[in-house]
Amino acid sequence: MNTFHSPAPFLLESGETLPEIDIAYHTYGTLNDNKDNVVWVCHALTANSDVKDWWPHTVEAGCFLDPERWFVVCANILGSCYGSTGPTSINPATGEPYYGDFPKLTIRDIVKAHIQLADALGIEHIHTLVGSSVGGFQAIEWAAMQPERFDSLVFLATSPKASPWSIAIDETQRMAILSDKTYGERRQDAGRDGLAAARAIGLLTYRGPWGYNRTQQDPPSDSIPNTHRACTYQQYQGEKLCRRFDAYSYMAILDAFDTHDIGRGRGGIAEALSRINAHATVIGITTDIIFTPDEMRQLAAMLPNAEYFELQSEFGHDGFLVEHRKLNEILLPRI
Amino acid sequence: MNTFHSPAPFLLESGETLPEIDIAYHTYGTLNDNKDNVVWVCHALTANSDVKDWWPHTVEAGCFLDPERWFVVCANILGSCYGSTGPTSINPATGEPYYGDFPKLTIRDIVKAHIQLADALGIEHIHTLVGSSVGGFQAIEWAAMQPERFDSLVFLATSPKASPWSIAIDETQRMAILSDKTYGERRQDAGRDGLAAARAIGLLTYRGPWGYNRTQQDPPSDSIPNTHRACTYQQYQGEKLCRRFDAYSYMAILDAFDTHDIGRGRGGIAEALSRINAHATVIGITTDIIFTPDEMRQLAAMLPNAEYFELQSEFGHDGFLVEHRKLNEILLPRI
Repeated sequence: MNTFHSPAPFLLESGETLPEIDIAYHTYGTLNDNKDNVVWVCHALTANSDVKDWWPHTVEAGCFLDPERWFVVCANILGSCYGSTGPTSINPATGEPYYGDFPKLTIRDIVKAHIQLADALGIEHIHTLVGSSVGGFQAIEWAAMQPERFDSLVFLATSPKASPWSIAIDETQRMAILSDKTYGERRQDAGRDGLAAARAIGLLTYRGPWGYNRTQQDPPSDSIPNTHRACTYQQYQGEKLCRRFDAYSYMAILDAFDTHDIGRGRGGIAEALSRINAHATVIGITTDIIFTPDEMRQLAAMLPNAEYFELQSEFGHDGFLVEHRKLNEILLPRI
Repeated sequence: MNTFHSPAPFLLESGETLPEIDIAYHTYGTLNDNKDNVVWVCHALTANSDVKDWWPHTVEAGCFLDPERWFVVCANILGSCYGSTGPTSINPATGEPYYGDFPKLTIRDIVKAHIQLADALGIEHIHTLVGSSVGGFQAIEWAAMQPERFDSLVFLATSPKASPWSIAIDETQRMAILSDKTYGERRQDAGRDGLAAARAIGLLTYRGPWGYNRTQQDPPSDSIPNTHRACTYQQYQGEKLCRRFDAYSYMAILDAFDTHDIGRGRGGIAEALSRINAHATVIGITTDIIFTPDEMRQLAAMLPNAEYFELQSEFGHDGFLVEHRKLNEILLPRI
């Protein structure tokens, strides 16, 4: 992991300022002399800049992020806790972590940080920009900000605007965190149980009915069950997130994602999308209940130069993480 | 509302005993001399025995629960807080409310209470048994317990067994309630914020993407939104439930619903369903993400004498409450 430090004040879309920022990032492969082999990956909610870690079998020889061919870059998003500036970073003004005092971010702030990093790395042109889920929020926004910077775009299970449905999911997670009265205390693990519940809520929407019914069946039994595999799974996944994430960072990025609207100040979504001329590969997942195939088809239809693919999967939204073989088939000829 | 009081100890499937039980119930219309015009309705999660209150335009002249024609009965489920014995009832042994000491219930216990009430009312034969959602859990279980008692069955957006997916949804709601550290305190409003979050989780699954995206769009705006209609909606619905329900009762019925398995001790689901010979009208909802149309078709296929209908709706699982016109079309000729 590398860290880009920008000592200059970072102006947020809200008008507030971060006195300085760090952006953690990973690269894989080598930037070629023409600097025309960059593939930039935007990560989703609680992921990090290490694509190999969270997206198995993609940054591999023969795969669509082949490091022999591409210079792959991924930056940890602002507001997260994997090395970039976020609520658990030290506020230079106080010498203490920001926690709940961290200013509200927008997707545009997150993308602005990506842009500062790309500029600092001397990357003028990006061959392909890839974004899945809320990584796609960043990718679509970046394409709207700098449409000329990219040859090719990959928007996977995502949206040009946070939908009422996705906002309702986020709000429900906020309600779970806030119902844990330890949230607000000035410590790393404040709101821990609420965060676990929030994660469990997220998981419901990532996996959906098919995902759970396929993988979490109980063995047949003639006695009243004391617990269920599905319960243990939710508990386990909640606990697991708490060991690697904190409630303050989680809230910061949920809030940021809800601000996503590439149409804001650009005459609406259709108008903003109509200016993105790069070739776009838009991929929906048949069982995704967060970003439904219908919405993905609509996104493709609004882009001037898009191809639409539908990934058959029983893993719901998480299909984007799981179905690397099918993704390779679609993306290898197109990146 | 009427109340049936049974002073005898009520033996639960777990082996524990309630010293006495009350069952609150409503009736509409008149029991005819032949006592052959009974339609029994089983209510869902947080509903009550007043069908007219929670199922608009059904208990009306010309509708499928027409009180001129039918004697409609609905009983508040054991474990609830609408007049039947539940966690907020006084424990005769202590003179205090049960709260967290209320014994664990199963769907079979809830149905056993329905049966005691039906017997007490002198209702031997039930023309039609109707159950939607977890009301359907009770209806299918009752049909499995006493297959000869019914001429006709209506199973709407429900399941013969709690699926891993529906259990995961319930577990996530439990996690939200338990993350509220006031849960466990011996008062009516213990765990209130957790309950609000749990309700918000439930709502996500009742309405689904189409429901939210249709009704909770924000007006277009060129400034960063401070909040969203979808947020206000989740908050409002959470608060609304807290004014009429308590976290202890909510937990009791969530736990009971997770025990649902008509195959338990009956050689499995297929075997149990194969003995239900009454005519069954099975209805799935196109956008239901809790009980998917696929699962509803499977249920119909396993019943010896079932007709399957699919209700076109954009309201997800809540379609069963909203689409009374379409339900009338299906059910008027069949009850």
